[in-house]
Amino acid sequence: MSEAVLSFEGARERFADELERRLHAAIVGEGVLFDAARYHLETGGKRLRALLPPWLAHNLGGHAEDALDLGVALELVHNGTLVHDDLQDGDVQRRGRPTVWSRYGMPQAVNVGTALLLLGIAQVLRSAVGPRVIADVNLAILRVVEGQALEFELSLDPHPTPDKWRRMAEGKTGALFGACFLAGARAAGRDDEDCDAMQALGRELGVFFQLQDDLLDLVGDKGREVPATDIAEGKISWPVAWVAERAAPLERERLMAIVRAPRAETSRAMVTEALAILDATGALAACAQATAAMAERLEHAPLAHAMPGLVARVLAPVAHAIP
Amino acid sequence: MSEAVLSFEGARERFADELERRLHAAIVGEGVLFDAARYHLETGGKRLRALLPPWLAHNLGGHAEDALDLGVALELVHNGTLVHDDLQDGDVQRRGRPTVWSRYGMPQAVNVGTALLLLGIAQVLRSAVGPRVIADVNLAILRVVEGQALEFELSLDPHPTPDKWRRMAEGKTGALFGACFLAGARAAGRDDEDCDAMQALGRELGVFFQLQDDLLDLVGDKGREVPATDIAEGKISWPVAWVAERAAPLERERLMAIVRAPRAETSRAMVTEALAILDATGALAACAQATAAMAERLEHAPLAHAMPGLVARVLAPVAHAIP
Repeated sequence: MSEAVLSFEGARERFADELERRLHAAIVGEGVLFDAARYHLETGGKRLRALLPPWLAHNLGGHAEDALDLGVALELVHNGTLVHDDLQDGDVQRRGRPTVWSRYGMPQAVNVGTALLLLGIAQVLRSAVGPRVIADVNLAILRVVEGQALEFELSLDPHPTPDKWRRMAEGKTGALFGACFLAGARAAGRDDEDCDAMQALGRELGVFFQLQDDLLDLVGDKGREVPATDIAEGKISWPVAWVAERAAPLERERLMAIVRAPRAETSRAMVTEALAILDATGALAACAQATAAMAERLEHAPLAHAMPGLVARVLAPVAHAIP
Repeated sequence: MSEAVLSFEGARERFADELERRLHAAIVGEGVLFDAARYHLETGGKRLRALLPPWLAHNLGGHAEDALDLGVALELVHNGTLVHDDLQDGDVQRRGRPTVWSRYGMPQAVNVGTALLLLGIAQVLRSAVGPRVIADVNLAILRVVEGQALEFELSLDPHPTPDKWRRMAEGKTGALFGACFLAGARAAGRDDEDCDAMQALGRELGVFFQLQDDLLDLVGDKGREVPATDIAEGKISWPVAWVAERAAPLERERLMAIVRAPRAETSRAMVTEALAILDATGALAACAQATAAMAERLEHAPLAHAMPGLVARVLAPVAHAIP
């Protein structure tokens, strides 16, 4: 191994500036398309997908530098999906600024999201490891798009279940995390078996991340107000899917009626009622338990030593709600 | 050379069925995303981008079979851009059937268009020649998206010109034709110089194709009614850009007012008036002349022997309007 294991914070300190520099350098064109892409990138974000490949490459015994461009590539891809996602969900703000579609219009948002995906693919191809990961990265992006399609299907499905939720989350969130983990392993020169195991680990981490996100929306960050925007937006989160499958008809039907009411017609009182149903039926407790069980499994996965502290980090915002 | 030069019709007879089979086989998934992608493909089309790579590969001395998957890939990409284009333009019908967005909704149309692009990239990567063309193909798709962005910019530009129109057309239509020509040359094992020349030739053919399309919209196919839908849709076609740059203020301002009026408020009388302005100012004649001059240049390009009859074929629908 080239150096001692790096913590997530250590990796961020070492690579965040360089990743940010390369991220902006990757958007090379002029005109409205590239201006809008830069505008979107400036809304910021955790840049988690950018950091994962170099961090993991280092901790798997390789050189982080070999995975910097792959990190940049996957962060560009992630941001492309966000631009499309904001448009599809009708979200007018992201981190306090107008989203691309609400500022530049629907047609340009379609273009900008697609352009960021293509810039990401171009960045993969520029990397020395690129030829060995491009087919998997491309397939992962297709899985993300499929996950987004499944999310809309699920929101109209008369019988949502946690299994259907998982299939959606494996695509929407898991596929790109899987690609980040695979990129780190390939850059570190690991064999196919390790690469497959890392990709599977990343995919599971993505599902775990989404499960935490669903729970967070309902129980809130410590000290933060509970917004439960997923309920107003009509999203089938894991706890809602749990109620839809397991709860008694009365609770199930009332919750689904609230979730599926148009956003503008969902009152604060209805959201409070939905939260009460999720609590009383045991859906919140089941979600907290599923989250804890998943964290436990991830911590003990064979290659989990490459991501020290990451599970706890993902868990932190909802830790207060976990038994 | 493996065999005598093939005509376009000869190539179509030989490869069309196999291309169609592979095109459908390339859409492998289940669920609404892939159902909608198949639905779109079934609207048909000329499959010109599919046929170009094998046809050109053959006529450049290679084996057409080596370029079949590249043709399928570029046809998938083209169809992805059409799905996005129909959404962006608000077109509710394509070849007499509801467009993807009008049948499946905006969010799924964003997904379906993106998925077709990614399936196209996957198909390039499956081809033996794939690694040698993937970066150029990916860049070409980015240029198409940039061209679509420029088209919207041009529709709002206070000073459209034929030069700005050309830049837009080089992206929107030229880039993918360029990729088709490059794919054919690479599959035939041609050297970098020939590949570059073929890509440039394809790009020019794409601009020529778009110029013909703009003219066709105004002068109509022989025996067909003249719809001039571009004017109602607010598109800055080449003749409109010519008037905006060259005509006297009175004609210029009246034409732009008609072109920029909302689609629903553009009466048949206004379209007739716009056509009269395009005729009286000499824009139609200039467009016909530019088309003829471009055809002449393309016919005499160094590698034009690889595409026998293609220029005449593109010209056929507007030939009656060419001096």
